[in-house]
Amino acid sequence: MIQQKSDYDDYGNHFPNSCKVYKAGSSPGIQVPFREIRLNPTQLPDGGARENDPVWVYDTSGPWTDPAHDLDVHKGLPPYRQKWIEDRNDTETVQDRGFQAQDNGLKGLGNRNLLALVRDRRKAKSGSILTQVHYARQGIITPEMEYIAIRENLGQEATVDTKYTQNIEGGGARQHAQTGPTNSLYHQHPGTGWGAKIPSLMTPEFVRQEVAAGRAIIPCNINHPESEPMIIGRNFRVKINANIGNSAVTSTIEEEVEKMRWATLWGADTIMDLSTGKNIHDTREWIIRNAPVPVGTVPIYQALKKVGDQPEALTWDIYRDTLIEQAEQGVDYFTIHAGVLLRYIHLTAQRATGIVSRGGSIMAKWCIVHHQESFLYTHFNEICEIMKAYDVSFSLGDGLRPGSIADANDEAQFAELETLGELTKVAWEHDCQVMIEGPGHVPMQSIKENMDLELEHCYKAPFYTLGPLTTDVAPGYDHITSAIGAAMIGWYGCAMLCYVTPKEHLGLPNKKDVKDGVIAYKIAAHAADVAKGFPGTQVHDNAVSRARFEFRWEDQFNLALDPETARAFHDETLPKDSAKTAHFCSMCGPKFCSMKITEDVRKYAASSKSNMNEVFAKEMEEKSKEFRAKGSELYS
Amino acid sequence: MIQQKSDYDDYGNHFPNSCKVYKAGSSPGIQVPFREIRLNPTQLPDGGARENDPVWVYDTSGPWTDPAHDLDVHKGLPPYRQKWIEDRNDTETVQDRGFQAQDNGLKGLGNRNLLALVRDRRKAKSGSILTQVHYARQGIITPEMEYIAIRENLGQEATVDTKYTQNIEGGGARQHAQTGPTNSLYHQHPGTGWGAKIPSLMTPEFVRQEVAAGRAIIPCNINHPESEPMIIGRNFRVKINANIGNSAVTSTIEEEVEKMRWATLWGADTIMDLSTGKNIHDTREWIIRNAPVPVGTVPIYQALKKVGDQPEALTWDIYRDTLIEQAEQGVDYFTIHAGVLLRYIHLTAQRATGIVSRGGSIMAKWCIVHHQESFLYTHFNEICEIMKAYDVSFSLGDGLRPGSIADANDEAQFAELETLGELTKVAWEHDCQVMIEGPGHVPMQSIKENMDLELEHCYKAPFYTLGPLTTDVAPGYDHITSAIGAAMIGWYGCAMLCYVTPKEHLGLPNKKDVKDGVIAYKIAAHAADVAKGFPGTQVHDNAVSRARFEFRWEDQFNLALDPETARAFHDETLPKDSAKTAHFCSMCGPKFCSMKITEDVRKYAASSKSNMNEVFAKEMEEKSKEFRAKGSELYS
Repeated sequence: MIQQKSDYDDYGNHFPNSCKVYKAGSSPGIQVPFREIRLNPTQLPDGGARENDPVWVYDTSGPWTDPAHDLDVHKGLPPYRQKWIEDRNDTETVQDRGFQAQDNGLKGLGNRNLLALVRDRRKAKSGSILTQVHYARQGIITPEMEYIAIRENLGQEATVDTKYTQNIEGGGARQHAQTGPTNSLYHQHPGTGWGAKIPSLMTPEFVRQEVAAGRAIIPCNINHPESEPMIIGRNFRVKINANIGNSAVTSTIEEEVEKMRWATLWGADTIMDLSTGKNIHDTREWIIRNAPVPVGTVPIYQALKKVGDQPEALTWDIYRDTLIEQAEQGVDYFTIHAGVLLRYIHLTAQRATGIVSRGGSIMAKWCIVHHQESFLYTHFNEICEIMKAYDVSFSLGDGLRPGSIADANDEAQFAELETLGELTKVAWEHDCQVMIEGPGHVPMQSIKENMDLELEHCYKAPFYTLGPLTTDVAPGYDHITSAIGAAMIGWYGCAMLCYVTPKEHLGLPNKKDVKDGVIAYKIAAHAADVAKGFPGTQVHDNAVSRARFEFRWEDQFNLALDPETARAFHDETLPKDSAKTAHFCSMCGPKFCSMKITEDVRKYAASSKSNMNEVFAKEMEEKSKEFRAKGSELYS
Repeated sequence: MIQQKSDYDDYGNHFPNSCKVYKAGSSPGIQVPFREIRLNPTQLPDGGARENDPVWVYDTSGPWTDPAHDLDVHKGLPPYRQKWIEDRNDTETVQDRGFQAQDNGLKGLGNRNLLALVRDRRKAKSGSILTQVHYARQGIITPEMEYIAIRENLGQEATVDTKYTQNIEGGGARQHAQTGPTNSLYHQHPGTGWGAKIPSLMTPEFVRQEVAAGRAIIPCNINHPESEPMIIGRNFRVKINANIGNSAVTSTIEEEVEKMRWATLWGADTIMDLSTGKNIHDTREWIIRNAPVPVGTVPIYQALKKVGDQPEALTWDIYRDTLIEQAEQGVDYFTIHAGVLLRYIHLTAQRATGIVSRGGSIMAKWCIVHHQESFLYTHFNEICEIMKAYDVSFSLGDGLRPGSIADANDEAQFAELETLGELTKVAWEHDCQVMIEGPGHVPMQSIKENMDLELEHCYKAPFYTLGPLTTDVAPGYDHITSAIGAAMIGWYGCAMLCYVTPKEHLGLPNKKDVKDGVIAYKIAAHAADVAKGFPGTQVHDNAVSRARFEFRWEDQFNLALDPETARAFHDETLPKDSAKTAHFCSMCGPKFCSMKITEDVRKYAASSKSNMNEVFAKEMEEKSKEFRAKGSELYS
């Protein structure tokens, strides 16, 4: 059975001293969630105390962490965006294509238990275009865009230009609206944006411009109204994706839904359901209905199941039908390997590791057997028509990505990238949203070339990379080999980083692996945001550093990306509660501490009151005498 | 009790299919160790098999992993370099300074059990200079230098220029000498050396030149003849250091010796004994006598213990005596925070986290209380005299390094760096070996400035950094936050990376933490070597990739930096032995596999025999028919 929400009814177990807060937009219907971490006061030397502002962090866990909601995984999340979608009056409810036994990879219907979950399916009205990029190009600021501006600002005040804003009303279930804390963005390092143009504060209008230009996407299928709007683009916070999904070998629906909630609790901005085993359709329905984040898939995986795992038996009709099936369910972005062209396949023959993308190798096999150009390429315009009817975003797959650093940045990879650029332009003509997938395995010195060529060939469409792994010598630790590459390419401008778990290349990730992968990638994305100079990012770092410096141990734990682990590590050496308020740590012990000495330095420098270089000799001598007269004791 | 060598009598438990091999130098006395990983043959489609060359990797575990040695931690390692030292005829045995109770931080002598361990102490004869940089400047290639050239080449043949080579004889215990495998360095990515000049194959003469120029150091105290020569410099392989050491709060001698052996088993190139608790002197003796790698210390830690943890009570005499005590024991490099000047201290007053270096804060406190310039600075020439009498290398400490990314690259840090450069020149005038310590906590976009300024201010002396951590938001995962920065600065030219364990900032590392830290840093160093284009580095990556591609599961595990973990992760999903020879993995299952399809692509491309772009249409059609005629079955 799926675990009920007792594990999740607030952040309590995993994020102590955190609570769910919302920041209202220009209308009551826009309520943007954050996790607020409450801090203890700083104990001052004079015995007083100074309050510390709470820290707000980006929150991807959705209503699952809001105790005001009474949720049930068998009923799914409330359809938060439903009213916005209906208010736009460009969709209609349609009869879905009809469930078929093969959708689940089964011969019979099996034991399905989905009726409470399935929603009415919607589609664009004939003649209407409902993609976010279409609205953006029309000059319309959607509620999704305003929501995103507030979210990217972590609740700092943004100016809402109401001129073109979609008029929305109503409330929804969000109850905790309040204004944000006044975090001072002190001492943020100037970042190097590598050509990125990041405003000091996001506005809905900026979001609109970026989406209109194709530099960012808002993956939000109209059939996934449960999702909370988010944006993927290099002028925004770097996002991370967590892959989940059952396989032919193991795992169950319940485990996959649980992994989705687990991944988003720790910070996954999107999840991809890469199921290849039985019950693909139903697994997806359960995941989407319960997912507060966009869900991506690789439709060719399911299409392949429908033809008995025989790539050569794939047809455009089967693929097309699968796209519609998944679009109706609410998948927010599709990985489509339309750049694997017949003429590129031989370029991989001498590689160390050939074609390692599953989708890429399926299509390569199909092309060879039929000696035809890929149906994904030849039917690309029809694919665009389907995508735009639901606002499914393209994630143009890199089927020829390198599977080892030996194969990085080769002719096959970059030939495909140029084709992805060509397809980007086609999709944009259809008013579709597009991002571009990238490698994979790339040694450090070759990473920037990937980013540069993607921007060049794909007209600055957002880049979405897997890692990249910077070395192949550490199976079992590829969350680390790839976090290095991910942080770097995020800094260079990559918009979303697909996580890699410690099990990569070895086995299927369990809950611990999912968490390890998400945390490693939260680190990479955050380090990249700091390096990009994204406004407000370093507030979180600085809060940890101040807590550490002031021996606010509980605050240091609670501010950590993973408070449980931080606390457990501390307690391993110094388990007593008193140690968590002690002005020392296990590294130096109670009698001496470098941080304590620094407090003396600071008092000393403060008391000298003038520039020490100018009045150096005299004043120093005085202070020195005075200090010695006081006994020069650190621990009196 | 310390564990006896049953845990270590070969690599068996930790590195299956590995064995210890030696490569002989120009004389039998030079026997350079490597770990040879033996691979299974590749199964060819025609039913035949192709042998795979074994892979040699750099081996820091010393004789502990050589079953030919009968070792006992209570007797220490054989003094491998003793004969080389004696042959130079520039040292003499001296009466040591005499053990004092305070050396162990105890009031009485305690229960000492060291007699079997302590060796005769040696020192330079009056008028003799015995540092490696002195020999190098004289044009002498020492056995240490030749050893290092072979080691850096991983056993590939190097030319030995015997003209100036120190004439040595004799054998020692090394028994397994053999020639290296003929690894083809196929498809190595061209690195970007950022101004580094790395030859395609190391020669002893190149080693000599680098040491003579001060761009590299060979930490090798004449009183630590057990150590195996290694080099630290940016034109060589990036090295890693593991910190161990007891503290005032917890841990024992036995645990620390065990950690040293554990850290070097997994790949630590040097270890630092940072003990601050009881039995400092004896812990150090045990570690050094059993250490096959250079050992570093921070002598001020012990000096502070001798004065009851009162920084203001420190004196030059106590410090000087401590230097001699430790130099006689065989410490290979000393961290000396001689750049913390009185006039820099106030620069730290407004920092977010002040002075976090322990040594730096001790000296800051001393300077303030006494209103005097640091005795490390005022007595620097005398320190040089001590260092050169034993060939202890300087590791000029960065006492004002940032303790948070908020404080990175500030005035205090770079002011000290300039002083370290000034001191480097002084030390070089004394024929001392010098490296420079660096941060700490630095956001990604500010890392390269650290490397560039170090090269500029410190005249290209080797840089040795702690991480740096690229974000402060993830206590509990700082091996990852810092592996990102470490890999980058290693690529930029940093010579040695001081590891950070997951327990950083939280508690004392246990064995698991030490291993996690070492593996994370082996990843960072290896990724940096790949990016630098260090010859031969990518052989290891490519061997893993080929094993993966060819479904040689056992080889993939055995080639991993941590075979145990790789194997355990695989077995979690597919525990059966048959799965380790299966041509599929748990990700895609038995019926479909992208790697398998690539084999078809390769066969297909190979059979077309000519450029597909030229004879495209016709030949493709033929092959396609032929392929279909064969049944187009992957698994027949």
